[in-house]
Amino acid sequence: MTPQSGTFYRPKALIFDVFGTVVDWRNGVAAECAAAFEKKGIAADPHEFADRWRAQYQPAMQKVRSGNRGYVSLDTLHLENLAAVLAETGLDAHFNRNECAELNHAWEKLPPWPDSVAGLAAIRKHAIIAPCSNGSIALITRMAKFGGLPWDAILGADIAQNYKPEAAVYQRNAEILGLSPGEVMMVAAHNDDLVAARRAGLSTAFVARPQEHGPGQATDLEATGDWEIVAADFIELAARIEQLPQG
Amino acid sequence: MTPQSGTFYRPKALIFDVFGTVVDWRNGVAAECAAAFEKKGIAADPHEFADRWRAQYQPAMQKVRSGNRGYVSLDTLHLENLAAVLAETGLDAHFNRNECAELNHAWEKLPPWPDSVAGLAAIRKHAIIAPCSNGSIALITRMAKFGGLPWDAILGADIAQNYKPEAAVYQRNAEILGLSPGEVMMVAAHNDDLVAARRAGLSTAFVARPQEHGPGQATDLEATGDWEIVAADFIELAARIEQLPQG
Repeated sequence: MTPQSGTFYRPKALIFDVFGTVVDWRNGVAAECAAAFEKKGIAADPHEFADRWRAQYQPAMQKVRSGNRGYVSLDTLHLENLAAVLAETGLDAHFNRNECAELNHAWEKLPPWPDSVAGLAAIRKHAIIAPCSNGSIALITRMAKFGGLPWDAILGADIAQNYKPEAAVYQRNAEILGLSPGEVMMVAAHNDDLVAARRAGLSTAFVARPQEHGPGQATDLEATGDWEIVAADFIELAARIEQLPQG
Repeated sequence: MTPQSGTFYRPKALIFDVFGTVVDWRNGVAAECAAAFEKKGIAADPHEFADRWRAQYQPAMQKVRSGNRGYVSLDTLHLENLAAVLAETGLDAHFNRNECAELNHAWEKLPPWPDSVAGLAAIRKHAIIAPCSNGSIALITRMAKFGGLPWDAILGADIAQNYKPEAAVYQRNAEILGLSPGEVMMVAAHNDDLVAARRAGLSTAFVARPQEHGPGQATDLEATGDWEIVAADFIELAARIEQLPQG
């Protein structure tokens, strides 16, 4: 139920966007690339490389969403995208197949934002918490171990065999928890993720991550919808969840 | 790799049978039934009722395994089985639909064996740990919150959309972690689960749970196969895993 239609109850589960919302993918991927470049004496800017790698993310998933390609996990897409970026930056001769596979694990070694672990632990006392990422269960499970993210379950694209922002992804992830969409809240630092989640019947929470894209970030600096919750970080989100009445 | 074929390396992940292996389903379900019976002044023996409810478990799943019924989650089967047991014990008039649904949550409120939480926490330092139960993600996630089970991910029947001991269940659960079957160890208190897991390519660990079926238990009192590990409890299992060389 939205605030407009009466009492807004505490969601039974909160599901989270991960890349950008829970973890700092840009600095994490750049750190792994910097280490790989240093080992090989490559002078490339690791943050620029991370940005280029991430720029391939939406177009690659779009082939699956559109039905032009069957579902393959994001690990496969990341590896294909890495090959494309190495080629476009003229670095492909430096990395053999095994080294590409190794560098692809960069996406599992992403640092949580400073408030993420404590905020999730606090929210977890009041509801089920799970990632609803386009990352695979394999990737997000290893990332959780790396960063100490205290998820109750690992959900996301693999569960729906499709990618956000398809409505079926949000709905299938609610269903697998035995919940209706209205009992689940989607948490994201991206307004478009919340637009799609609301359309799929979920409630929504926005937490801005103004450093996600580095110093020049121009998007998602603030909430652009009347989301049920807008919080400065996961600690405030936890406090807001705790204050909601139980349904 | 089995011990016979050379060095046996530490598994990258351990996946666990849950009902009986990690938690005490019989006493847990009986406790919930006892509370429900007391509220209604019913004199039935709650342990006998729990045994009858559990006796419906394998035949119900067999319809799915055989292909005579599409995959439905264990929550649905448990609810159907509850209706059958209430009818056969003459108690069906006492429970309306909502009360049956409420009692069905008994399977989410099962106490871990005394060594389960500490043992899992110790194993988790060395490998990914996840349930590979016939219970649904919804059920096993709530059970983990109830008992404080520190899983890295919640896997199982829902992931494969089929029930153990079908080989595809073990293999699909390894695959969703990005691992080959040989990199994953199945842990169970049931020899037949391990027979099937080994046939599917996984390594195996047996931990006897001689109280699972109450004082008169006659099955699975000891390992009946040459499982890679046979341990007295999860604490010993953790120590054995820690001792294995990393592959």
